[in-house]
Amino acid sequence: MRQVLVVKSGGAAALPEWQAAFAACAPDLELRWWDDPTLDPAAVDFALVWDPEPGRLAQLPNLKVIFGSGAGVDAIIADPDLPRHLPLVRMGVEGAAQRMGEYACWAALSLLRGTRRLAIAQAEARWDYFEPDFTAREKVVGIMGLGVMGTRAAEMLGGIGFPVIGWSRTPKVLPGVESFAGDAARDAFLAKADILVVLLPATEATRGLIAAPLLARVKPGTGLIHAGRGSQAVVDDVLAALDSGQLGGAVIDVFEQEPLPADSPAWQHPRLTVTPHVASLPSRRERAAHVATCIAAFRRGDALPNLYDHGRGY
Amino acid sequence: MRQVLVVKSGGAAALPEWQAAFAACAPDLELRWWDDPTLDPAAVDFALVWDPEPGRLAQLPNLKVIFGSGAGVDAIIADPDLPRHLPLVRMGVEGAAQRMGEYACWAALSLLRGTRRLAIAQAEARWDYFEPDFTAREKVVGIMGLGVMGTRAAEMLGGIGFPVIGWSRTPKVLPGVESFAGDAARDAFLAKADILVVLLPATEATRGLIAAPLLARVKPGTGLIHAGRGSQAVVDDVLAALDSGQLGGAVIDVFEQEPLPADSPAWQHPRLTVTPHVASLPSRRERAAHVATCIAAFRRGDALPNLYDHGRGY
Ligand SMILES: NC(=O)c1ccc[n+]([C@@H]2O[C@H](COP(=O)([O-])OP(=O)(O)OC[C@H]3O[C@@H](n4cnc5c(N)ncnc54)[C@H](OP(=O)(O)O)[C@@H]3O)[C@@H](O)[C@H]2O)c1
Ligand SMILES: NC(=O)c1ccc[n+]([C@@H]2O[C@H](COP(=O)([O-])OP(=O)(O)OC[C@H]3O[C@@H](n4cnc5c(N)ncnc54)[C@H](OP(=O)(O)O)[C@@H]3O)[C@@H](O)[C@H]2O)c1
Repeated sequence: MRQVLVVKSGGAAALPEWQAAFAACAPDLELRWWDDPTLDPAAVDFALVWDPEPGRLAQLPNLKVIFGSGAGVDAIIADPDLPRHLPLVRMGVEGAAQRMGEYACWAALSLLRGTRRLAIAQAEARWDYFEPDFTAREKVVGIMGLGVMGTRAAEMLGGIGFPVIGWSRTPKVLPGVESFAGDAARDAFLAKADILVVLLPATEATRGLIAAPLLARVKPGTGLIHAGRGSQAVVDDVLAALDSGQLGGAVIDVFEQEPLPADSPAWQHPRLTVTPHVASLPSRRERAAHVATCIAAFRRGDALPNLYDHGRGY
Repeated sequence: MRQVLVVKSGGAAALPEWQAAFAACAPDLELRWWDDPTLDPAAVDFALVWDPEPGRLAQLPNLKVIFGSGAGVDAIIADPDLPRHLPLVRMGVEGAAQRMGEYACWAALSLLRGTRRLAIAQAEARWDYFEPDFTAREKVVGIMGLGVMGTRAAEMLGGIGFPVIGWSRTPKVLPGVESFAGDAARDAFLAKADILVVLLPATEATRGLIAAPLLARVKPGTGLIHAGRGSQAVVDDVLAALDSGQLGGAVIDVFEQEPLPADSPAWQHPRLTVTPHVASLPSRRERAAHVATCIAAFRRGDALPNLYDHGRGY
């Protein structure tokens, strides 16, 4: 009997795309949509979900593994009835870290070169020539969160010439990257960075972290790149820091409310670049391949990679 | 007696900045402005120029070395009375290649991620979410011109993950970079590239090169980054190729007429990013240090670096 994978990610319209992607890498798997009225809950073996309605996963009596369809699983964890005894696998394809590294490099170079200013000038057909002050070699990038994403970003930013430092819960040994660990080291880390890159998971400890108290600790004129989770930043505080000059510029990919409402002042700020949560989104093809590999491992009785840790909170 | 360096670069208002920069690295040099009416032409030993009026350099009887204030010296060479027996040194500071590499990385990632589309969406406060197709690993960058600039750009683009190929007059051996040399190899090179980066000097051979005949040879959807010289591209042909889809996107830094006139259609094209000739401009401080080093070498009787070759044309 074919095993069943139920999908809630990308909307019902995305199902055919998921089906095509899985047909290529796991042809024996039956894909069903989350809200399919003909679906027998007892027939579901695996779930691939981004934001399941609370209580729904608990109604699948034979569910064996839950797959998050993104690197962050906060929308899944938010379910109070989540079957916590089941393995929850976070998305973790090689391409995801590569994409995040590309985004971090693009955003850091954008801040270094003032490209938001250039984009505004282009819209006004205005040749806004200005002399550049610094190269990447003179600007320290501080990465907040040295996990799968942060580690690759550190490597790629270093390759461009930026000196790189990092902040994480536990100390890291990465070639050429000065490591700062834990809350006690945070302010020393902030005092050294010229450009911050937020790649932290959404946890209680990181909720509302990028706000006035932290921003008061950065060097005046610091650049901010935020590609973690919307819950981590208070956008009004970021805008105030941009206005006061405490932040020199920012590139933000994630927001508390997505899509960012059209009346948000964030869209208009002359030193803020907004991107629509696209920093690192592997293609469906890549994500299906990751899930198929994990299901094969599970069937063989092998350990699953990239497990969410309920104790640690990410 | 102090030697005299006459300056024509950045406008008369830039002289104090040049004086401060040279005071730090060559305090024994006297700096004078090009149009200073009190200047005795016979007293001038060195000239640092960007676009000297034709015939003017020939009126300096004791001139020993001409320094170009940018990497391209085409505005100097255009002078029919240029004293061709004197050494002409092109600007070549380490920071210049680093900056160009940063620009090439920023522009290549901008094309990969469709950031012109995102900038337009931001101006309209519109959350324009789209799934990314490729990572850098899947897009071949083809660098046209593997000189000082192109070599460093190749290195940095490779570090981000792009496969890199290059085209130059003579064959090159660069780690990880497939080399194509000469006109005969040009079309084979174009057929392999997904993103082109133009870093050629302005010569007779490169004038008008980036135009319809060459654009007909690229893969459909190719990205174009042009940071060489304005004379090398026919912007109308580039716009037509963007409209037909032959080019998927473009980032252009240099134009035949600079500043680019406000009524140029280039400003408005939804797949073209315009930057105002800022790809690689070393600071005055860096350029002064380069000139001071060369003058010291000249006084010792040592060879000058980065000489313009009148036979080769760059
Ligand atoms: N914008 C997008 O498109 C996008 C795409 C993918 C992911 N993301 C975001 O990026 C985040 C990171 O992804 P990942 O795969 O790299 O996660 P990960 O591998 O779990 O790494 C998380 C890192 O954050 C550190 N960390 C966690 N809590 C911390 C705290 N309280 N103080 C200091 N450091 C702390 C961890 O430290 P230890 O190593 O010491 O445990 C670890 O280095 C995701 O959670 C998601 O929110 C965004
Ligand atoms: N936008 C900006 O801000 C900015 C700033 C600086 C420079 N630039 C531009 O960038 C250009 C390159 O600077 P660079 O210092 O790298 O120059 P370079 O060291 O002289 O290198 C020029 C390269 O172009 C190749 N080349 C010349 N003519 C060619 C032809 N007909 N066909 C194929 N290849 C040819 C040369 O080949 P060989 O090695 O075989 O001789 C060499 O690899 C400058 O001339 C300038 O126009 C722009």
